Order: sequence, then C-alpha cells, then structure tokens
Amino acid sequence: MTDCQGDGEGAKSPMDLYEQLNAQGDKVRSLKTAKADKGEVDAAVKLLLQLKVDYKELTGQDYKAGCPPSEDVVVPDNGPVEDGEDTVDPWTVATTNAKGVDYDKLIVRFGSSKIDKEVVDRIEKVLGQKPHRFLRRGIFFSHRDMHQVLEAYEKQKSFYLYTGRGPSSEAMHVGHLIPFIFTKWLQDVFDIPLVIQMTDDEKYLWKDLTLEECHRFAVENARDIIACGFDVNKTFIFSDLDYMGSSPEFYRNVVKIQKHVTFNQVKGIFGFSDSDCIGKISFPAIQAAPSFSNSFPQIFGGRKDIQCLIPCAIDQDPYFRMTRDVAPRIGYPKPALLHSTFFPALQGAQTKMSASDPNSSIFLTDTPKQIKNKVNKHAFSGGKDTVEEHRKYGGNPDVDVSFMYLTFFLEDDEQLEKIRQDYTSGALLTGELKKILIETLQPIIAEHQERRKQVTDEMVKQFMTPRPLNFKI
Amino acid sequence: MTDCQGDGEGAKSPMDLYEQLNAQGDKVRSLKTAKADKGEVDAAVKLLLQLKVDYKELTGQDYKAGCPPSEDVVVPDNGPVEDGEDTVDPWTVATTNAKGVDYDKLIVRFGSSKIDKEVVDRIEKVLGQKPHRFLRRGIFFSHRDMHQVLEAYEKQKSFYLYTGRGPSSEAMHVGHLIPFIFTKWLQDVFDIPLVIQMTDDEKYLWKDLTLEECHRFAVENARDIIACGFDVNKTFIFSDLDYMGSSPEFYRNVVKIQKHVTFNQVKGIFGFSDSDCIGKISFPAIQAAPSFSNSFPQIFGGRKDIQCLIPCAIDQDPYFRMTRDVAPRIGYPKPALLHSTFFPALQGAQTKMSASDPNSSIFLTDTPKQIKNKVNKHAFSGGKDTVEEHRKYGGNPDVDVSFMYLTFFLEDDEQLEKIRQDYTSGALLTGELKKILIETLQPIIAEHQERRKQVTDEMVKQFMTPRPLNFKI
Repeated sequence: MTDCQGDGEGAKSPMDLYEQLNAQGDKVRSLKTAKADKGEVDAAVKLLLQLKVDYKELTGQDYKAGCPPSEDVVVPDNGPVEDGEDTVDPWTVATTNAKGVDYDKLIVRFGSSKIDKEVVDRIEKVLGQKPHRFLRRGIFFSHRDMHQVLEAYEKQKSFYLYTGRGPSSEAMHVGHLIPFIFTKWLQDVFDIPLVIQMTDDEKYLWKDLTLEECHRFAVENARDIIACGFDVNKTFIFSDLDYMGSSPEFYRNVVKIQKHVTFNQVKGIFGFSDSDCIGKISFPAIQAAPSFSNSFPQIFGGRKDIQCLIPCAIDQDPYFRMTRDVAPRIGYPKPALLHSTFFPALQGAQTKMSASDPNSSIFLTDTPKQIKNKVNKHAFSGGKDTVEEHRKYGGNPDVDVSFMYLTFFLEDDEQLEKIRQDYTSGALLTGELKKILIETLQPIIAEHQERRKQVTDEMVKQFMTPRPLNFKI
Repeated sequence: MTDCQGDGEGAKSPMDLYEQLNAQGDKVRSLKTAKADKGEVDAAVKLLLQLKVDYKELTGQDYKAGCPPSEDVVVPDNGPVEDGEDTVDPWTVATTNAKGVDYDKLIVRFGSSKIDKEVVDRIEKVLGQKPHRFLRRGIFFSHRDMHQVLEAYEKQKSFYLYTGRGPSSEAMHVGHLIPFIFTKWLQDVFDIPLVIQMTDDEKYLWKDLTLEECHRFAVENARDIIACGFDVNKTFIFSDLDYMGSSPEFYRNVVKIQKHVTFNQVKGIFGFSDSDCIGKISFPAIQAAPSFSNSFPQIFGGRKDIQCLIPCAIDQDPYFRMTRDVAPRIGYPKPALLHSTFFPALQGAQTKMSASDPNSSIFLTDTPKQIKNKVNKHAFSGGKDTVEEHRKYGGNPDVDVSFMYLTFFLEDDEQLEKIRQDYTSGALLTGELKKILIETLQPIIAEHQERRKQVTDEMVKQFMTPRPLNFKI
C-alpha cells in the first residue's frame, strides 16, 4: 500500500520500512506494557499491521524482527490468483463474471487507489472544467500518485504524458481508442507534451511475426492514433525498433533499468519461465524507459526530474509497478498512473476484445452497415427473451454490451441515465437500445475514418521524428 | 563436434542430426543382422557413437530413437567442469597448472579445432607470406571454420573481422594488446574491414561503475587500440552505449537474436541464475550482433551474407558458440573464429592478468624503469635457486613467465629457440633471460606510448563515427 498514498513522500526502501517496523513493534510493546489507552494501542497495532502489509508488498517477504530484508526484492502481484478471482496481466484478461472484471478487487490486489468522487472533484477544481466522461463514469477507475501530480500542477510544476500501443496487426478496434481518446483530453486540458510508444519489438518477441511486419503495423496504427486529433507540436510517437536505434539516451535508461531488475523479479511480476526467450525477459525495461523524462532529451533538454503520468488499461500496471520500484533506485521520480477498465467484447464483458476475431468488436474500418449488423447480431443483450417479459420485468444494463458501449461513447450524462432507467424498467426494448448505440457509433467511426484519410505520410513522419515539442522547462 | 570440421557443409539442425542418427542406427542393425565384416560393423558403430556425441552437444539432450529433438535447444559447454579441469568462461579463468590452462583439453571440451601445422601452412599458402608469430607459436591455437574462410577467400569472396574489448578501467596491460596486434596483422594481410566492439554496457551491468565511467573507459581504451596502428579507412570502433542508440539495424539484430535464445540456454552457456539482473541475461545478444554484416549497413550496404571472422581469447568462445547456434535460425552465416591462449600474469600462468593489480602485469603506461623493476621483481622464474644449480640442471622455460612473454613479443624464431635451448641447458641465467625480456618490452611499450600520444580526439571521433569503410562488395 506504499503506493496508494500519493502523498509525495518519496520512495521507502525495504530497509527504511524494516526499521520503521522495528520501531513500531517497540512502540506497541511499550504501550501494552504501560497499559495505555485502548484506542491508542489499537491505532498503533493498526499501523503496525499496515506496515507489515506494505513490507510484504515491497519485498515479497514476510516481516520478521531480526531478519533485515534481502537484496533481491520481488515486486509481487499481491499474491497468486485465487479461485474465482479474475486474471489480469499484459497477456491475459479473464473473468467468469458477465459484468466483467471485479475492478474493486483489482485495486486491492494491485495496491492502487480508487478514483472516487473526491479525486474526480479535485480534477474538476484544478482544471476549472468538467472532467472527461471516462472519469465521471469510472472508466478510468484507479490511479497511483494522481494527487501528487495535481498538487505539483497547482504549483505550476509541469508533467508529461506517456501511453502506448502494441502493434500486433493493422486492424484496430474501438476499444483500442479508449486510452488515446482520454490521453488527447488530458493533453488538451493540461497543455503538456505526450510520448506514445509503439512496442513493435515486443510484438516481434511475442508473436509469430517478422520485424518488418511489426514495424509496418506500428506505422499503420500510428495513423489511427494521429486521427484521434493529437497536437503535432506536443506529441511524439515512436516505434521501439526505430527509436532504440536513434537515441543513446533511451538505450542508457533501458540498460540502467535492466541492471536493477532481476530475473526473479520479472518471474514474479510477469510469470516468465526459464524457457522464455531472453528478449521477453528483458523487454519490461523497454516499456519502463519512457517513464523517465531524460529518455527524450530532444523534448526535455536532458532533465530527468519531470514527472510522468501514464494513462493505460489496468492490464499494463505490472510494467509500471516494476518501473515504480526501480525509479528511486536509479534516481528518477516514480511515474503516476491512471488505469482504465477494459472495453468489453460484443459477446460480453468476460474478456477483452480480440483484434483477430472480426465479430468480437467494432473495427475502425467498419462501414455503417457492418456496425449495424454487428451490433444487432452480436452485441450481448441484457434484455428478456420476449417483448412481453421485457416490458414486465425490464432489462439488465449491467450485463448489456450495447449499454456498456454507450457509457464509453455517449457524451450526455442525462440521456445515458434516462436510457439506463428506461431499459431497467422495460420501457426501452433491446432493439431500441441497439439502435441508439448504432446511431452513436456510426458517426464516430465515420468521422474517424475521415480524419484518418487526411493523415498523410508526411504527417506520420513528422509525428514519428524525434524533435523538440512545445514545452516550457 | 559438428563445429570442428570447418568443412563448409553448413549448419546441421537438431532434426537433420536426429534423422541421420535414425538412419545410422538402422544401418548398424542391418549390418549386424547380415553378419557383415567386423571392420565394417565397427566403423558404422563408431560413426553412430560420434553422431550421438554431436547430438548431445547440439541439443543438450541424449538421442533417443522415436523422440525427435525438442525446440528448446541448449548449447552446453560440453558438460560441467570435472575435478582438476580448468575453468574458462568470460568471467573466470582458473587452472592449478603452472604451465597454464590445458588448451588441448579445452579444444575437446569446447568442440573447436586445433590450429595445427596444416592450418598454419594453408594460411601461409593462401597469403603467400609467413604467418604471424602468434600462429607459428600456437598462441592462436584453436579455430572454428577457418578452412571455410580461406576457401572462400581463395575464390575472391571477402570477409570481415570483428573483435572487441570490455572497458572496465582506463588501464590496459600488454595482454590486452594480443588480440589487437593479431587483428591488425589480419587486417593488413587480408585487406578487409574490421569492427571493434567496446562493451561499455556489459561493464556497467557487471561492475560497480556508472554509465559515464564505462563510456569514458571505452573512449580511453579506443586510444590504445588505435595506437596499435589500425587503418582508419578499414576500421570502425564503437561503444555499445553509443552505437545501439545510433543504428536501428544493430538493434534489430539484437532483438532477432534475443528472440531465438532462451533463459535455459544462457543459463547452460554462461551459468546465469535467477538472481542475475535481466541486463546480464540479455547481454549475450549484444555481443553476438556484430557477427552479422547487416548490423553495419554503413559498411556493408545492408548485405547480410558477408562472413565474419572473430579473433579473440578462448574465454569469449561461449558467446560465439551461442551466436553460431542462432545464426542459421535467423538466416545468417555462422561467424568463424580464431582463439588465443591467455597472456600469463607476471606471477605465473595459473590465471589471467588483472587490470586491478598493478604488479600482475606490464601496463601500457609503465615507464622503462617500471618495466625493468616489475620483470625483475615479479616475473615468475623457471630457473633454479642458485647459479650453480641452474648451470648444472638448467631452467624450465615452460613455467618461466619471462620466456612466455618472449614467445609473445620476440619476433625472431631462431633467437627465441636459442634462448629456449640455452635456458633449458643452464647456459642462460634467469637474470639474463629477464634482461632480454626487459630490452624487448621497453621499446615496444615506449613506441606504443609515442603512437598513443599522436592519437588526437579528432582521430578517436573519426574511428568511432559510423561511416562507410574501404570495402568492395
């Protein structure tokens, strides 16, 4: 839980925590000996227990008085997945619940903080404007150190954004847009630089693809990302295969991170095994490196102290738990994070959408007719079997994929709430709900396609060229 | 033993070998059934056993009829070190024998080929000139695929040289010059390009040094290397920390190699453990990458089929056994190798010299007086305790470090042989032998220092800038 406070107190080393635990243990014992006030003892015990949890999280070991922490710290995924728990890591998202992953449980397991009303209100206050619908509706539901970022921002201290994409195919679906739609909003409202990593090297290592294919997918996907409307003066998009070979500073950070993470650690965090290739084993350092501002000297002039904020889907958190563990040990600030839920497949919220199954999602290349057919044919319904029953008992929006999609794409809160009520009461039929979704998605996709058409090769080249951005140091 | 033939037959895959074994097993059975001639049966059995050894070496598994080889091929160091055997890997060289490592045993263990008289004669024939004293005297004693290189060269097919240095300090000693002296000779007589890798990233990962220190050592060591007389039009020296961040093609090859080597394999080859950092685990790919010509498009215009010849000390062979295993799987030719023995410490041939012990070796910065004092004071002597005994029984040049050093640095074969005979007979005293060594080393070191002084920053920059070299494709 050391990470959830967002109090900017800086990194605690295992040894710091060990010593704090020793002191707290002493305190509890002396309070008990002195027969102190029950409330006081309880508070001291509570802190002791919390420190033990923190210690276990940081070191992977149980605290034991007299046994200082060993060097080889493991950053665990807060223990193995228990029966009935969801599986969430960068390669697998699985749940048996039709409502999707239990995100509250995930917050506890990952040790992050919930984006509750207080956080949303604070963002609204700092910005002086209404927060994005993804924040209002809990689509970005979890964070690390967001309070620290906002505090610094209030004191005129700038930060930068980092997000990314693994380009495993040419085809992107609407779910892939979620982090980019939100990141564009963050860029606009905070007026800050953004770096977008295309992990074509990762896709080469994990998939049965050639380097050339992965690189081509990176450039093609960059077109869709640019079409989200990013400001070329504030955005740098890079392919790992290109940028690693163009920036000695980036490689230096990769090597620094690789020196400070052991195989034991990546085994614990990512589940790698001895028969995994050495490329996979060392890759997490490459996804970590853009979290540090001196990986981009052309943007930040060699400064290493500019805080990074990473909006991403929660399945990417293991990479950044590792990054946050390494950061203080190599003299860099920990990146802050904003985590999103997963965009459900048309067939239901049990899994993430798959780029390889054309019927699992709405693709960015789909025609209005394809969108209509897919929603009508494949979108899992929370409605009843017959109109009569539906009118009588009402539908269940919590498992209805069309309704879920509307929470992502329908801007008007009141309209959405009305749809929810009408669907729940049975006043709104499944066919009518689907029609609203179709009419919401069709223009969004068509406009995206129109913007993508206007993205020229020259523009892609410009976005992908290392260069200074608008950033006042 | 697949590697020792140097017959240019190309790489045998585990599956090829498995099938050859099946066929040979069938042949032995049918010969026995047919009660064939004993000599014929014996020859067939001998080949079968040899194939089984080859299979074990290539796959790390025992051959078993009916069980095709698994994907996860381990390249072993031909089994663990037995009691009394020498330890030779990139980080440890240890022997209990005063004559030094048993190099003939090493050839068998590593599965390389001896540079015997036939190989030396062939090099002489191909070149039309006397081979370097390091070849004549067995200092470069082992090879892989040298016949293939020579055959291709005779057919006007060019190749290139690759060697390197791990810059762990500013101080280089005479032993560090051995591969460079020899490589310069190879460059001169074959008139071919040379790439020299300074593994500053490796030193950062292995040692308690900063990135800046390692990079500075790389540049300082490059001065000493340049002072060996390399031709700037045919030589590219690069720091990994710089070149990885300047060449997307180099990084692409690193990733390709990293995809095709598992943790199991590097564990088997290099003895890495779970508590090693992920930088160490993936580093071998970085030392492997310069073995492939398309890592240097500025030199070879993107060609990937130009054979590489690597002169290096035998302790670096594990890296290149791995490289040779990977090469055919990613469509590149295997690099050929020339292995040198170790340059003995002044205290004796039991270990390599150490850059951190100033009395273990002659440094390139030593004054004539220091050289004289070190040789007189520290060079282990093979002579007898008193002049009388020495005159009577003679000295032992095989353990005498001064004599060993002369085999490295005295050019005249006849003079060296006379010294050997006189020392063995007792006609030459230890003090006299040391005097000859001192007088041989002093001008070599002084001349090196003179040449190093003339190496300007501008020259270092030129050698270390990626650029085309004189090379006719």
